[in-house]
Amino acid sequence: MSQHFSGQAAHPALDVRVAEAVQASFDRQQAMSLIRASMPVVQSGLVEIHLPHWSGVQQQHGFVHGGVVGMIADSAAGYAAMTLAPLGASVLSVEYKVNFMAPAQGQVLIARGTVLRPGRSLIVTRAEVFAVRDGQESLCAMMQQTIMVMHERAEKP
Amino acid sequence: MSQHFSGQAAHPALDVRVAEAVQASFDRQQAMSLIRASMPVVQSGLVEIHLPHWSGVQQQHGFVHGGVVGMIADSAAGYAAMTLAPLGASVLSVEYKVNFMAPAQGQVLIARGTVLRPGRSLIVTRAEVFAVRDGQESLCAMMQQTIMVMHERAEKP
Amino acid sequence: MSQHFSGQAAHPALDVRVAEAVQASFDRQQAMSLIRASMPVVQSGLVEIHLPHWSGVQQQHGFVHGGVVGMIADSAAGYAAMTLAPLGASVLSVEYKVNFMAPAQGQVLIARGTVLRPGRSLIVTRAEVFAVRDGQESLCAMMQQTIMVMHERAEKP
Amino acid sequence: MSQHFSGQAAHPALDVRVAEAVQASFDRQQAMSLIRASMPVVQSGLVEIHLPHWSGVQQQHGFVHGGVVGMIADSAAGYAAMTLAPLGASVLSVEYKVNFMAPAQGQVLIARGTVLRPGRSLIVTRAEVFAVRDGQESLCAMMQQTIMVMHERAEKP
Repeated sequence: MSQHFSGQAAHPALDVRVAEAVQASFDRQQAMSLIRASMPVVQSGLVEIHLPHWSGVQQQHGFVHGGVVGMIADSAAGYAAMTLAPLGASVLSVEYKVNFMAPAQGQVLIARGTVLRPGRSLIVTRAEVFAVRDGQESLCAMMQQTIMVMHERAEKP
Repeated sequence: MSQHFSGQAAHPALDVRVAEAVQASFDRQQAMSLIRASMPVVQSGLVEIHLPHWSGVQQQHGFVHGGVVGMIADSAAGYAAMTLAPLGASVLSVEYKVNFMAPAQGQVLIARGTVLRPGRSLIVTRAEVFAVRDGQESLCAMMQQTIMVMHERAEKP
Repeated sequence: MSQHFSGQAAHPALDVRVAEAVQASFDRQQAMSLIRASMPVVQSGLVEIHLPHWSGVQQQHGFVHGGVVGMIADSAAGYAAMTLAPLGASVLSVEYKVNFMAPAQGQVLIARGTVLRPGRSLIVTRAEVFAVRDGQESLCAMMQQTIMVMHERAEKP
Repeated sequence: MSQHFSGQAAHPALDVRVAEAVQASFDRQQAMSLIRASMPVVQSGLVEIHLPHWSGVQQQHGFVHGGVVGMIADSAAGYAAMTLAPLGASVLSVEYKVNFMAPAQGQVLIARGTVLRPGRSLIVTRAEVFAVRDGQESLCAMMQQTIMVMHERAEKP
């Protein structure tokens, strides 16, 4: 009975202008470009951020740094929230909590952000981060997050 | 009565070999060098990571990315825990939770990690992140974290 | 692709002696009896705790107190972890984080605890809390938790 | 430099009508009376909830149930936030995260809620929970919380 809360809820179709605003916002995040992250999936209530494993994002053991894992989880879930906010609104992370479950090793990390509960001023989200190794996904982190919606505060390019 | 839990507990003096192991571990974190973070303070139960504000770590509004704030908080608190772990042990983040309180704007961010409760296998820590603007510190984020101690698993250079 | 991490993973069959140890532990929790909670579902990696809505567990608006919601979430997820721990082990909550999504109103609350990642010493879990109103479930809270396994420390009756 | 964020910030003097509204709200929380909690300290930005150790709040090992510890922490920090909200506003827990650091054993538990950052719509708080044993306080849990302020929605008696 709870499955439809696990990220695949039926959300309204994504307004193309909202999708463009999400993409434009991501493109302005220089920190995402610094770590070489991309955002290949933007759907209504679901956003994926992908990160190739390269030396610049490693911690001392050669895995992807937990803080970098948190970064892509934070952004994926925040943008998933933004897909459900009204046109012209922007979003802010109020807080997030992330559990690390396995070392982030693999050729690519995928942070999959989904919306648990949309609200007018606050949106509760989740991100799962998977390490992809030889085509096999394994869960390496789980994040739960609170997002604030700033109405009529579109980001300025 | 609670003040001595707020990060300034009297911890045993820092073994110089532990301090060196902390520094060597930090130096191996390429992600810290990518974002241009440094670690100027390593004391018993207290570590500071400093981050200059530069374009590469910004989000879409020109502030430091919340994920980057989380990254330096995670590392500062993790290394604060490592200063209290036995020589030859390494530390892992089990989880952390961070609240963002104000936009991270200023010339420098300081993440100050402290130990709330040292334990043999788990250490509970905190990090406060301050933005320094014209010499004035303002609190921009607060993190609470659980660290696991891996005994007799020194990091290999 | 992520669905099998959302709580319905295939876990090994539940040892009847572990099931009995879980039930005996629950029965010793006087706080569960104080709030009139019951535990009608104990499966491998999945435990439900049910709470009737009665005046004693209310907060100031007449809904179930958020702390009580956290209590049944904490216990449901902790016992879900215990179903996957070896016989003779006990479990402890290291920490949990809970988001409240809607007022807890209805005739019954159901806290459904599942295991996100079983480990030898640490287990990461989740609990979803639903309010049941006229047979309709609605999600009112979501919790993410870290559990420590204490090996060979069976609880004493 | 960070000390004034650790709970002892200088807040404006407490309006007596706000203090009365906090007390009236607490008195309406039947769940607090069920567990026998009291609220002997209500100051500007600081609230204490005390809980005697009695059999009804125990878990299976005879300590106070972690969920009950979370309950008094949640309420203490929420009411600390309410002391800084305008007259006529009520407060809601958006989320909280609690780390358990030591078994809650002693004659009395004290949850001390403080405000880390007051805001117009969101307030970030903390609660420390101490077990008092023979007059000696020891820290047993630490909570970090987000509170939403509902303006002009005074609670109805």
